[in-house]
Amino acid sequence: MTIRSFNPPPRSLMGPGPADVHPRVLAALARPTIGHLDPAFVGMMDELKTLLRQTFRTQNALTMPVSAPGSAGMELCFVNLVEPGDEVVVCINGVFGGRMKENVERAGGKPIVVQGTWGRAVDPEQVESALRQHPKARILAFVHAETSTGVSSDAKALAAIARQHDCLTIVDTVTSLGGSPVEVDAWGLDAVYSGSQKCLSCTPGLAPVTFSERSLEKVRDRKSKVQSWFLDLNLVMGYWSGEQKRTYHHTAPVNALYALHESLVMLSEEGLEQAWQRHRHHHLALRAGLEALGLELMVPESERLPQLNSVSVPAGVDEAALRARLLSRYNLEIGAGLGDLAGKIWRIGLMGYSSRPANILLCISAFASELGAMGHNTDASAAISAARALLDQDADCR
Amino acid sequence: MTIRSFNPPPRSLMGPGPADVHPRVLAALARPTIGHLDPAFVGMMDELKTLLRQTFRTQNALTMPVSAPGSAGMELCFVNLVEPGDEVVVCINGVFGGRMKENVERAGGKPIVVQGTWGRAVDPEQVESALRQHPKARILAFVHAETSTGVSSDAKALAAIARQHDCLTIVDTVTSLGGSPVEVDAWGLDAVYSGSQKCLSCTPGLAPVTFSERSLEKVRDRKSKVQSWFLDLNLVMGYWSGEQKRTYHHTAPVNALYALHESLVMLSEEGLEQAWQRHRHHHLALRAGLEALGLELMVPESERLPQLNSVSVPAGVDEAALRARLLSRYNLEIGAGLGDLAGKIWRIGLMGYSSRPANILLCISAFASELGAMGHNTDASAAISAARALLDQDADCR
Repeated sequence: MTIRSFNPPPRSLMGPGPADVHPRVLAALARPTIGHLDPAFVGMMDELKTLLRQTFRTQNALTMPVSAPGSAGMELCFVNLVEPGDEVVVCINGVFGGRMKENVERAGGKPIVVQGTWGRAVDPEQVESALRQHPKARILAFVHAETSTGVSSDAKALAAIARQHDCLTIVDTVTSLGGSPVEVDAWGLDAVYSGSQKCLSCTPGLAPVTFSERSLEKVRDRKSKVQSWFLDLNLVMGYWSGEQKRTYHHTAPVNALYALHESLVMLSEEGLEQAWQRHRHHHLALRAGLEALGLELMVPESERLPQLNSVSVPAGVDEAALRARLLSRYNLEIGAGLGDLAGKIWRIGLMGYSSRPANILLCISAFASELGAMGHNTDASAAISAARALLDQDADCR
Repeated sequence: MTIRSFNPPPRSLMGPGPADVHPRVLAALARPTIGHLDPAFVGMMDELKTLLRQTFRTQNALTMPVSAPGSAGMELCFVNLVEPGDEVVVCINGVFGGRMKENVERAGGKPIVVQGTWGRAVDPEQVESALRQHPKARILAFVHAETSTGVSSDAKALAAIARQHDCLTIVDTVTSLGGSPVEVDAWGLDAVYSGSQKCLSCTPGLAPVTFSERSLEKVRDRKSKVQSWFLDLNLVMGYWSGEQKRTYHHTAPVNALYALHESLVMLSEEGLEQAWQRHRHHHLALRAGLEALGLELMVPESERLPQLNSVSVPAGVDEAALRARLLSRYNLEIGAGLGDLAGKIWRIGLMGYSSRPANILLCISAFASELGAMGHNTDASAAISAARALLDQDADCR
């Protein structure tokens, strides 16, 4: 059988990521490849670090994209900061907290779990109590924006507690960065990783990370070698550091980095705070429309991520059938629930370039149409009007 | 300072990789992003596995691209196959053998080094002797095509010796795959990794790997967990396996995989053996031209990689200055020597789409011009004629 060129169907990506990628970013991706040690490329890398610092709101010298997906960004933080025998307090309120625990174990550390509730924020009091009971722990790890539930935890408060107990923080901002406030320096976060394919609206495959000076001290003071050669910060820094000559470590994913650069240029053109505002604003419009259709958001209002909306599946609705219809009829992708929430929620993303009025209307009208066809009573007019009224409140958000 | 969109200078890439990327592959890269669990994407993944099996010449079920550069492909092989305390015989005849040793150590194994000569093939007799002296070793690791020197080792012979000693092989084919024969099944190689950016002519960032059934048995029989979560084959297979439902592991680099698919479609259109022939043929033409300029290839003829030519820097030539001139005047990138060979050789790649007559002429005439300007006696006419005479011998190679 002859295999031919692959032409993907043009989807609207309103799941938990990847998000829609802007045509400007796709165009940047396709620019001619140059060498990873080319002086022109090295100049681009320096710009990329500057743009990432702006996005993470940090002055951290070590701020760069890891040449692999967000999960590798997570692993980079753990394998560099955790040594065998180290106690690490890990907050679990969804899939990614669980993955953090796995990472601690595989790095030879001892995870101390703060077990939270899926769909709720991490509880600062539980964290405080765990740190008090485990005075030897020197790291607190938590997920700022849980992609599996659409929950935002109070990273500022958690980091403050960690500091009181002389702990560094490892923070997952995969779904928050670019979509809602992440203030690495103001909140005092230490090792922070993210992903390219969520609110940065770049293609998947890169993991921006940033490390505070005090977390780097811990990396430099390690007694044992980092178990991963590929993710060893001491080596990676030789390639990404600005001062001396770049040392070859691995071949950087040149074109993917063009794309990340372009997505960050677009974000800086829009303005980071304006992008946060846009995500909030569109979340409210989507929510108004979905609620007018009789749907409910699962997460309590104060803990909701605007960029990722967990919608409770109404009784009697086959959630997988509805998702399949949205995809086949309208090329619209939304996400299923993961883990404990499989079958119970849909996850509707409004991330980066996906967060725009046209997608909101498409999503609301597609839900109205398909829920109606499944025999549910829906009023599309009311839902669209409700969303539109909200969209009208801030004409600057496009 | 405002950072603007990055527009790379259009280079000709004749270094050790990345190679020139064909416009068809760049176009595939820029196709709209879809979800990593989208049925259309899953179909593309199945095709990709088939195409990779053809390229590796294997029936191995586990054949897939790792979502990270070649160095991560190397690490995936070692962290899955090596357990703490395992003895691993590692052949070192260049940079990448040394990196293999690092990987063994970081996985808790005990490397037994077969120290070879930079610029020469691995010596099968030395390997035989090391395996005899270390009967507990169960893995032999070697580099098929040393990117740091341009040397090809006899993978078939080395794998046969390994089997006689009941050893699995871990084989680096980063620079060979697609450019010169790699016969995974016929030679009986076990865990084999490569890179996307060399003779496959794709963008950098992916590491095709293939694992024999007997190597997977060792992975399944492990006593300890794989130290890397991101590279744990037991988990990665859940996403890439064809049989059951795909399990989410990490977000695949969707667009990069489009590009790899397209580059492999192009390779299958050309024919793998025809591609090997093209690399051999163009190597001979380049060599004829360079020798007519008075330059010499460093590697003995029988051990040369056609796709990567190590050229000895003539006495009195500032090798870095020459490379800088090629880049600034002609947008032509060639490689420097690494490690022991820094300052002593240039590395000229003819990989994938870079292996074409126009690049050969550009390289020869640029060397003639710049060596001439540096006061060396060169005869450009003779060099071009010599190359052209070789190119004429096989008009099918374009």
